Amino acid sequence: MRNATTVVPDQAIVPDQALVPADAPDTPWINGARLLDRIDRFAEIGGDENGGVTRMGFGPADREARSALVQEAVKAGLEAGIDAGGNVLVRRPDQGAGERPRLLIGSHLDTVANGGRLDGTYGVLAGLEVLQTLHETGTETSHEIVVAAFANEEGALFPQPFWGSMVLAGRLDALPEDPRDYTGAPLREALALTGGDLSRLDTAVWAPGSLAGYLEIHVEQGPVLERLGKPIGVVDSITGRTQLKVEVRGAAGHAGTTPMKGRRDPLVTASQIVLTVRQLAEEQRLCRVATVGRLDVSPNSPNTIAQSVQFDVDLRDSTPHGLAAAEETLRGTLAALAHQGGVEVTAEATIRTAPVLTDRRLRAAVTRSAEELGLAHETLPSGAGHDAQVIADIAPVGMIFVPSTGGVSHVPEEHTAPEDLVTGVDVLLRTVLGL
Amino acid sequence: MRNATTVVPDQAIVPDQALVPADAPDTPWINGARLLDRIDRFAEIGGDENGGVTRMGFGPADREARSALVQEAVKAGLEAGIDAGGNVLVRRPDQGAGERPRLLIGSHLDTVANGGRLDGTYGVLAGLEVLQTLHETGTETSHEIVVAAFANEEGALFPQPFWGSMVLAGRLDALPEDPRDYTGAPLREALALTGGDLSRLDTAVWAPGSLAGYLEIHVEQGPVLERLGKPIGVVDSITGRTQLKVEVRGAAGHAGTTPMKGRRDPLVTASQIVLTVRQLAEEQRLCRVATVGRLDVSPNSPNTIAQSVQFDVDLRDSTPHGLAAAEETLRGTLAALAHQGGVEVTAEATIRTAPVLTDRRLRAAVTRSAEELGLAHETLPSGAGHDAQVIADIAPVGMIFVPSTGGVSHVPEEHTAPEDLVTGVDVLLRTVLGL
Repeated sequence: MRNATTVVPDQAIVPDQALVPADAPDTPWINGARLLDRIDRFAEIGGDENGGVTRMGFGPADREARSALVQEAVKAGLEAGIDAGGNVLVRRPDQGAGERPRLLIGSHLDTVANGGRLDGTYGVLAGLEVLQTLHETGTETSHEIVVAAFANEEGALFPQPFWGSMVLAGRLDALPEDPRDYTGAPLREALALTGGDLSRLDTAVWAPGSLAGYLEIHVEQGPVLERLGKPIGVVDSITGRTQLKVEVRGAAGHAGTTPMKGRRDPLVTASQIVLTVRQLAEEQRLCRVATVGRLDVSPNSPNTIAQSVQFDVDLRDSTPHGLAAAEETLRGTLAALAHQGGVEVTAEATIRTAPVLTDRRLRAAVTRSAEELGLAHETLPSGAGHDAQVIADIAPVGMIFVPSTGGVSHVPEEHTAPEDLVTGVDVLLRTVLGL
Repeated sequence: MRNATTVVPDQAIVPDQALVPADAPDTPWINGARLLDRIDRFAEIGGDENGGVTRMGFGPADREARSALVQEAVKAGLEAGIDAGGNVLVRRPDQGAGERPRLLIGSHLDTVANGGRLDGTYGVLAGLEVLQTLHETGTETSHEIVVAAFANEEGALFPQPFWGSMVLAGRLDALPEDPRDYTGAPLREALALTGGDLSRLDTAVWAPGSLAGYLEIHVEQGPVLERLGKPIGVVDSITGRTQLKVEVRGAAGHAGTTPMKGRRDPLVTASQIVLTVRQLAEEQRLCRVATVGRLDVSPNSPNTIAQSVQFDVDLRDSTPHGLAAAEETLRGTLAALAHQGGVEVTAEATIRTAPVLTDRRLRAAVTRSAEELGLAHETLPSGAGHDAQVIADIAPVGMIFVPSTGGVSHVPEEHTAPEDLVTGVDVLLRTVLGL
């Protein structure tokens, strides 16, 4: 039964009444219109006329979004606070603190430059909507529910992505004395402006065991759910990532006067490597995906055989052995291609992120909620990184995906159908209640 | 026998006396020290501390080099003039004008940005040295010898390469009303500063038949002579060139979240094309050389499957049918690869230069001169373009190459051993006298 406090101006954006299971008469529904209105209003903070959003972590637009979140929470009768890491934490005022096992719902409000309106923000506003619905309906929960807007997940301005979740998980032990952003501005001051305190980060750490579970809802950022026509993704893992910076050095020469025989053309070898990288995933199936997206040629003149080519190889897999096998196979091929092409090839790992498995019990809870609502669902890995992979250090984590139109993300065109956004949060609410 | 006016401070830089053929006692020798000194002095005009030279056509350094050439000519007792196209033309004062068939020796003084000290300049100073030697020794020639420093061969600043030779050959009929350089500055004024006159270009045209032959000496700009250990190259052809601008358009996506299946990655297809281009020349031998030297990826982010890739394909061959076969084969492969990769591929010709054959009689004269001096020689094509290919429209042309150390050109490292520079000009002098 629909709760009396819920206003639903647009019937199209909530599940059909027929879907409401007969055996869950007391389960509240979230307010879809309120959720969508908040998403629209937050998209204006740092938004531009093309639909893009630029709210880089610890920058002015990011601070404005955090303040807006605190105001929304307070207006909803909730309590909001800021920890020393700059994370915004929202709670119900009437549920005590620390009396019951805590369940955290989180994501982030910061974006990349010219990013989308949903990535991160949807997860935070989903958590707020769930908490507000529980509060308004006076629904008791077995856990103490806390909603977190983690600071600086993207690392677009200050070069420590996952900042806020790393602070909370106690993983920021190797911090420089006076960290700076890409412009040279000190983090200490920017953090203080958000209400954080660089000298007291230890007070923001949640000890292992203090957290019963973590849930995050996010747009898929890929095409799988849209292609399958399924509204709910149950994330089984967050993909690990190995990124290698590869440089091929050959011998420059005049394109017209240097005979083919004896050329040491680094772009030829680089092209062979690009095709090898694709094969690692597509044919050899050593890892899930493998990509070269950046490639720079020097001197890059139509008339000159290149001197050197530099590019990044991005390997992702849900298993550590998949990543290791792909890298090992690639390195063997690099050596062979270097010899064959008479060029030098070096490959240096710039990113190594271990894969994370989501918790079996939380996956089952999400699946059950989707099935209660009669929603088709697909179990799939997350190819992108999320705060959940950091929190996995201290607690079991679960993630829910909703479809991304065209599979695109981190761009102004990022989009999810309104009914999918609402449906996803109803699944989140049911998951919380089902635990 | 060595002429009395020749000063030779360094014996290492002239051919061994034993090489002087017994049956050519009256043939003069050029002054090698003077030639090398001039090359050094001209390298300082627009030169930098790294040995590079920047003397872009019609720019201030280019004007300074032209003035220096006029001064050197006048000091040597020669006559120098500027035609309406800005070409510097040097003659002996005592040989009349138009009474005998004219033989032109030419090249250019302008360079690319941060180019070498020899490309072009060596050919002009070689011509001056030959003319001065003939004048000083009072040597009569069957032809009236004219030395030309053609304006703006490189087209580095004003976008019409081969400007001066095209004016002289009467090929500049499609000129815009008010031509501008890359900075927007009007050519009319820059040309006037050199002594030319944009309104009277027709006065600079040499009618077909007015020229008995054209000779140009140049550094090879490739590694062939150095690899063979031969000091003289007899150029049999100037390679034709087809340049295609290729664009591959696919579908951008997140490198972590987009499954391999269904990807339309333009960098994968571009890599296949780069390897196909190499095969055109190296395996299929349809054309002499084939190169991709410029390649740009968009958006060029390590985390993102590319949206599009743009690059240039440079095909060179001494025959029109070789160029045509290579292009046709490439276009067929492009269509197949586009279909296979699910991407769009377009290819547009941006340069089409027809191959030019050098004159059989002039080739024979160069070969004979080298053999008279006991010099090993190799017949080879020119892979780069030269003013000779333009003058070939109105006269038989011949070209002499000297070795390029490391095969490099258009860079500060451009270098030829001093003895090879001197030897080449002695071959040029003997070729002129042998005609």
